[in-house]
Amino acid sequence: MTKHQINGARRRVLQSLPALALANYLPNALAAGKEQPNIIFILADDLGHADLGVYGQTDFKTPHLDRLAADGIRFTQAYANSAVCSATRFALITGRYQYRLRGGLEEPIAGASDTIGLPPSHPTLPSLLKKQGYGTALIGKWHLGYLPTFGPLKSGYDSFFGNYGGAIDYFTHKPGVGPNVKEDLYEGEVPVHQIGYYTDLLGARAVDFVNKQQAGKPFLLSLHYTAPHWPWEGPGDEEISRNIDNIFHYDGGDLATYGRMVESLDASIGRVLAALEKKGLAENTIVIFTSDNGGERFSKTWPLTGQKTELLEGGIRVPAIVRWPGKVKAGQVSDQVAISMDWLPTLLAAAGGAPDPKFPSDGQNLLPILLGQARSNERTLLWRYKANAQRAIRSGNWKYLKIGKNEFLFDVVKDQRERANLAKRHPEVFAQLKAQWETWDKQMLPITADVRTHGVSGPVQADRYGVPASGSVPD
Amino acid sequence: MTKHQINGARRRVLQSLPALALANYLPNALAAGKEQPNIIFILADDLGHADLGVYGQTDFKTPHLDRLAADGIRFTQAYANSAVCSATRFALITGRYQYRLRGGLEEPIAGASDTIGLPPSHPTLPSLLKKQGYGTALIGKWHLGYLPTFGPLKSGYDSFFGNYGGAIDYFTHKPGVGPNVKEDLYEGEVPVHQIGYYTDLLGARAVDFVNKQQAGKPFLLSLHYTAPHWPWEGPGDEEISRNIDNIFHYDGGDLATYGRMVESLDASIGRVLAALEKKGLAENTIVIFTSDNGGERFSKTWPLTGQKTELLEGGIRVPAIVRWPGKVKAGQVSDQVAISMDWLPTLLAAAGGAPDPKFPSDGQNLLPILLGQARSNERTLLWRYKANAQRAIRSGNWKYLKIGKNEFLFDVVKDQRERANLAKRHPEVFAQLKAQWETWDKQMLPITADVRTHGVSGPVQADRYGVPASGSVPD
Repeated sequence: MTKHQINGARRRVLQSLPALALANYLPNALAAGKEQPNIIFILADDLGHADLGVYGQTDFKTPHLDRLAADGIRFTQAYANSAVCSATRFALITGRYQYRLRGGLEEPIAGASDTIGLPPSHPTLPSLLKKQGYGTALIGKWHLGYLPTFGPLKSGYDSFFGNYGGAIDYFTHKPGVGPNVKEDLYEGEVPVHQIGYYTDLLGARAVDFVNKQQAGKPFLLSLHYTAPHWPWEGPGDEEISRNIDNIFHYDGGDLATYGRMVESLDASIGRVLAALEKKGLAENTIVIFTSDNGGERFSKTWPLTGQKTELLEGGIRVPAIVRWPGKVKAGQVSDQVAISMDWLPTLLAAAGGAPDPKFPSDGQNLLPILLGQARSNERTLLWRYKANAQRAIRSGNWKYLKIGKNEFLFDVVKDQRERANLAKRHPEVFAQLKAQWETWDKQMLPITADVRTHGVSGPVQADRYGVPASGSVPD
Repeated sequence: MTKHQINGARRRVLQSLPALALANYLPNALAAGKEQPNIIFILADDLGHADLGVYGQTDFKTPHLDRLAADGIRFTQAYANSAVCSATRFALITGRYQYRLRGGLEEPIAGASDTIGLPPSHPTLPSLLKKQGYGTALIGKWHLGYLPTFGPLKSGYDSFFGNYGGAIDYFTHKPGVGPNVKEDLYEGEVPVHQIGYYTDLLGARAVDFVNKQQAGKPFLLSLHYTAPHWPWEGPGDEEISRNIDNIFHYDGGDLATYGRMVESLDASIGRVLAALEKKGLAENTIVIFTSDNGGERFSKTWPLTGQKTELLEGGIRVPAIVRWPGKVKAGQVSDQVAISMDWLPTLLAAAGGAPDPKFPSDGQNLLPILLGQARSNERTLLWRYKANAQRAIRSGNWKYLKIGKNEFLFDVVKDQRERANLAKRHPEVFAQLKAQWETWDKQMLPITADVRTHGVSGPVQADRYGVPASGSVPD
């Protein structure tokens, strides 16, 4: 690396302010009374970076999502805010680092609590869009705290059909196994019983929702599937559902089942998109598809390493696709670095609104990128994770990573597998990123002893043999 | 699993004798004076299961090896005898479990010693083929012990050009870095200095060898590349060579460089095959291509987990291709389970010979499979590895795996990723395989304190964060 390059690297490192500078590019036309777009925000659960055909999956097919990407823009460097479910969902719905809220520290939220959840008073993507005149609905997984204290109807959604927790069995709709476990399926705040494969139920409800919409009244539909989260049950696998004794399902699953789960997710989304088309709403609807964290045990993450619960790229890199016919040019592939908390400012901008100034977004309004009005810009993004004392910062192409006692500096563009540790070759970059992480960390809520965290461990996953049953290595 | 299936599983588990029963299928025609085939045995170093186009690599191209597979038979379930270099080479050259020889216990051989190497008196693939009238040559890596005690010329090869150790820099031909390190490049037992990229030097020498051959005098050419073993240097990367300070090259490499290394390997092999064709020898030459262990840090091993130094499938599963025009039908893909030590009895059978009865092969003569005279048969294969106290046995589709304190039972056909631990669902299979491993282990040399072993550790590889700097977790 030449001196010039080092200076370039240093400049990039120093560009650490939440990159809102581009907000100036906000197209005023959109904010000035033109027809507001509908929004369908589709979130998959534990879907890894390369689990869609268009991202490199070759073992099964995802024609509807591949087509969605072909009709719009696909991001190759999109990140989740966290390596687990509920933490990322905090960032998504608030547009801010999840570490600003106690509930967002949980990795992930495990059970009911009066204090751990999304405070109903906090501005959210649905509550801010409501102010712009939107109807709002969540169909699917909430995972931001339990009734009676927390819930989607208390945080900006007009209606809700789905589960409050982190995972349910696809057939019993229970968050665990056994006769004493209650179903976690709700219509608003009322428990309901339904028969069917959960992915299909959510898709059917979303189709109903779309069919009820009328042009002129914009809507936000958050369609948050649990697929392809464990347990490992594809459509028709009721017998597997009857035979599991632990919902984590460490003794089940295989690539074929995983493929069927993702294919059914793709098919379900296909039905929703077809309904949108038939209703004549496709043209003025922004459809976003992404995932809440990196891949789990059967996910394809090649060429990345790492997985859910890890700040390696495979644990936080996700697919991200945006389609907005007529506005976002079809067939685009963008290397813009993006992250879950960007969608709030982006979608508010598209709706003619903006984040609450008292709760400014830590994310970036990506609308100028989507509309082709701005070129890719460098980002500085930060993560932390309690299990295994993980820290990460990406700035430009550099990434500082700490796991346990081990520290690394990677060029994650050149070396996506995070193998070549450049810490000694570029000590000044290494030191700067490390210091920058520390400065940022002080602005976030501290990780205290009572914060729950979850890691992979050797006893349940053979290739993590060094990690003891506790799931944590010493820091 | 039904009772019938359990009994089937038990039967498979009990079929544990070295599966030599098929030797009866040996085609007598071959042993009865017909023209003996030439043999080119090509061994790659650290090439992973999915690193060739025909095995799923899509990031770069390997047209010559893909074509070799199309013209012959490709094995989808081929294994290396060990998860590291020299141990597998012991099994390859002796046709027996490497654990029968002190040198074979090393993981891998690291330095010169009077006792750790292949005893010159031991029958080998080249020495046994010489008795069948073959001329024999090794071009490339030896790694079975150092001069003056050990060496290819002492173990059955008529000639040798290559390196004695485990790895050399592709440009300096040194097994380490710095002015005091001597080159490891030999013509027989005489050090030689040459200029050039090692993969190209070996290919050119192999082309020369082929060009000197005459029909009627059969030959064995062992062409053992070091590619794509570290250091991470593609053709033209002399500047990288000048700048590395540790031959393990933990601060270098990336997928693009790795791709160029494998592409140059493929091109070099292409030149050898073209020479064979031009010389008119292709028709009567068996060409075998395989690797000595599973993938290293940049290797593609999807959908397997694990890597070199691990008994997970990714650490021991390798590509294996055989071409023998006219004899082996083109375009075949075989699910026959195979292992490095099978090649000795297989090639001797093809040459009209057999292993030395005092040193019977632990492998299986695969000739009936290659010639389409027998269907795939179930195997029982066993491995052990000192680092992280690893044990593995595959019997039928079952695999028992132990790493550190963690024990697993997998169906590695249904679940190639080794995620679903079936130990509690099938306790009888688990117990049987475990006992079978113990019985076998007693027949092998013990792993004593002085046995060297090498494992991946967290400080050098981010996704192995649980493994301490020593490279071993407690057993």
